[in-house]
Amino acid sequence: MAIGFHIVQEDVHTRARAGCITTDHGMIETPIFMPVGTAGAVKTLLQQQLDQDLQAPIILGNTYHLYLRPGTDVLQQAGGLHRFMHWNGALLTDSGGYQVFSLAKIRKITEEGVWFQSHIDGSKHFFSPQRVMEIQRRIGADIVMAFDECTPYPCTHAYARASLQLTHRWLDVCLACFQEQGLYGYSQTLFPIVQGSVYADLRRASAEYIAAKETAGYAIGGLSVGEPEQMMYEMTALVNEILPTGKPRYLMGVGTPWNILESIALGVDMFDCVMPTRNGRNGMLFTWQGIINIRNKKWATDFSVIDEYTTGPVSTYYSKAYLRHLFVSNEISGLQIATLHNLSFYLQLVREARKHILQGDFLSWKNEIIPRLKSRL
Amino acid sequence: MAIGFHIVQEDVHTRARAGCITTDHGMIETPIFMPVGTAGAVKTLLQQQLDQDLQAPIILGNTYHLYLRPGTDVLQQAGGLHRFMHWNGALLTDSGGYQVFSLAKIRKITEEGVWFQSHIDGSKHFFSPQRVMEIQRRIGADIVMAFDECTPYPCTHAYARASLQLTHRWLDVCLACFQEQGLYGYSQTLFPIVQGSVYADLRRASAEYIAAKETAGYAIGGLSVGEPEQMMYEMTALVNEILPTGKPRYLMGVGTPWNILESIALGVDMFDCVMPTRNGRNGMLFTWQGIINIRNKKWATDFSVIDEYTTGPVSTYYSKAYLRHLFVSNEISGLQIATLHNLSFYLQLVREARKHILQGDFLSWKNEIIPRLKSRL
Ligand SMILES: [Zn+2]
Ligand SMILES: [Zn+2]
Repeated sequence: MAIGFHIVQEDVHTRARAGCITTDHGMIETPIFMPVGTAGAVKTLLQQQLDQDLQAPIILGNTYHLYLRPGTDVLQQAGGLHRFMHWNGALLTDSGGYQVFSLAKIRKITEEGVWFQSHIDGSKHFFSPQRVMEIQRRIGADIVMAFDECTPYPCTHAYARASLQLTHRWLDVCLACFQEQGLYGYSQTLFPIVQGSVYADLRRASAEYIAAKETAGYAIGGLSVGEPEQMMYEMTALVNEILPTGKPRYLMGVGTPWNILESIALGVDMFDCVMPTRNGRNGMLFTWQGIINIRNKKWATDFSVIDEYTTGPVSTYYSKAYLRHLFVSNEISGLQIATLHNLSFYLQLVREARKHILQGDFLSWKNEIIPRLKSRL
Repeated sequence: MAIGFHIVQEDVHTRARAGCITTDHGMIETPIFMPVGTAGAVKTLLQQQLDQDLQAPIILGNTYHLYLRPGTDVLQQAGGLHRFMHWNGALLTDSGGYQVFSLAKIRKITEEGVWFQSHIDGSKHFFSPQRVMEIQRRIGADIVMAFDECTPYPCTHAYARASLQLTHRWLDVCLACFQEQGLYGYSQTLFPIVQGSVYADLRRASAEYIAAKETAGYAIGGLSVGEPEQMMYEMTALVNEILPTGKPRYLMGVGTPWNILESIALGVDMFDCVMPTRNGRNGMLFTWQGIINIRNKKWATDFSVIDEYTTGPVSTYYSKAYLRHLFVSNEISGLQIATLHNLSFYLQLVREARKHILQGDFLSWKNEIIPRLKSRL
């Protein structure tokens, strides 16, 4: 069976909802943030840390990266990505489209799919909707994504419209060949993706087209690609008016802590973003008091903990001075600590949001907390 | 009070002994291997992993690195290295001599000490016996090392002899200014270092000179620097004949798993080496079945665990194929897994050695196991 979803409580002041997704790899309380495990690993971490230290119920894998390395043959021989990486929680894979359009060298886009060259060795490959369904079937994630073109920002209305139509035709191909019964004894669920750039008419048309498919969940793509935040919120709000309320909504690639809270208020249930991991590796820490650049000289003798309000394995265990020292000394342990801290914070952020939805004070809490989250320490 | 040591059992067939060191930061069962925490971190790991996953009772810090970064002022302000890095186990710091002679650019060696330039920024510094005692006092390790010159291999008898005499004069300065009562409410213990290159007469003279100091422990330096293994064993055996049996003996910078077992048989109690961590980060894994180069293509679809005989957090959790994939994909998680595996193995190796000393079958166990440990898988 596909994933299940039920809403535990709807917020009265906003569109926010506290919900619960059931998968063959455990239950996911929503709203949820999914750490990005690009090539079968959340960079710097072990699966035990995701599970025990961070209590992440679901992580994301990138089809493009996994397809190139270790390759779908190896993953299928291993019995799927869960077994290959020894991860017992839920998994979501993207369609590879985003990386093909951002990392690879595109050779040709046709009605059938995309010819591209690997960013690793220049080898030539072809992704089509059928092929991406087959690859994701062999990877074996619980939730898989339809193959889409993620339009860049800015892009003209004409380009966005033509691209959207192609994405919709590709979706029909994906739906036609998708099999819910997976290869490894559990089911898979396909999420279609709403596109349409920053054009309200296109977003509306796409949301309607996609909603009509009556899938078990929906994704909103093509946002957080450089457009003003207000435009992202407008598009998200507009799309969520159309998508059925009873299904989970996944806003792809978003975002900052305040982006996440504002989008929860607009009715989004699922998020993923490389920000806590990638920015963490660059020394940018998100805390309940604001943003820290840990490389800054000012932390050299600040022996207070990284963030006294973030629970988890490292945030109240190591000092700012120590973490700064590790960054300045190029110690990999520093990358691990920053990653663990930022993911602890992001997961606590969505858990806190859920708690406040359940308590009925989500809106006032969100509005009170956002200025602090945005501040620079 | 200085560290304590008592021998629990002496082996009848070899010089091996099972002992117990007591420190103000816990008890250390010997023989022991000390992971190297260069600049206040065992590369890629967290202190919780050293403590909980590896159960390492003692780790090593490098005075040279810590002096340059974060610097002794920061460490003293933090209340010492234990507090700075949040490590509650025992700590040993080397004298900085080895790194000054191997990493830094030496400007001048005098009777008083060594002028050198930092390998990081070229800044000029001076290490003398007094200065190194003061730096290690401010770092605050449980066991600190006398300032010595570690002779290179090969070196002439004349050079080794002159160097040894300087090392002995420096030791007298160290002993004169060393204070057992540390800065942070616990005591420190000074270990002098036997030198003498591969010359039996010099080693003998050095061991006698050092033994006469009646310190709470002794180190053997200047070995495992390129000389044939057999020479290292000969020198170690010769020195251990002279050093008092009732004190712990630390063989610095050694070595491979078989080096450790052979040296335990010669009466060594303590070891440190970058091999499990550094070689691990290069993809070289030590296992009970032999040595693995995890980058090798042959492991691409080997889904068996890394080493079924090594207990610990990763060795039976992740497969060879997965770890190879992480290395090939340049994933930092792979460095962490390799480090955790190798340190799990090294710590298990010395625990097993201790068990077999206590059981009385250490010699036959060692001889049976060494060929397997040396084999290439
Ligand atoms: Zn709260
Ligand atoms: Zn045994």
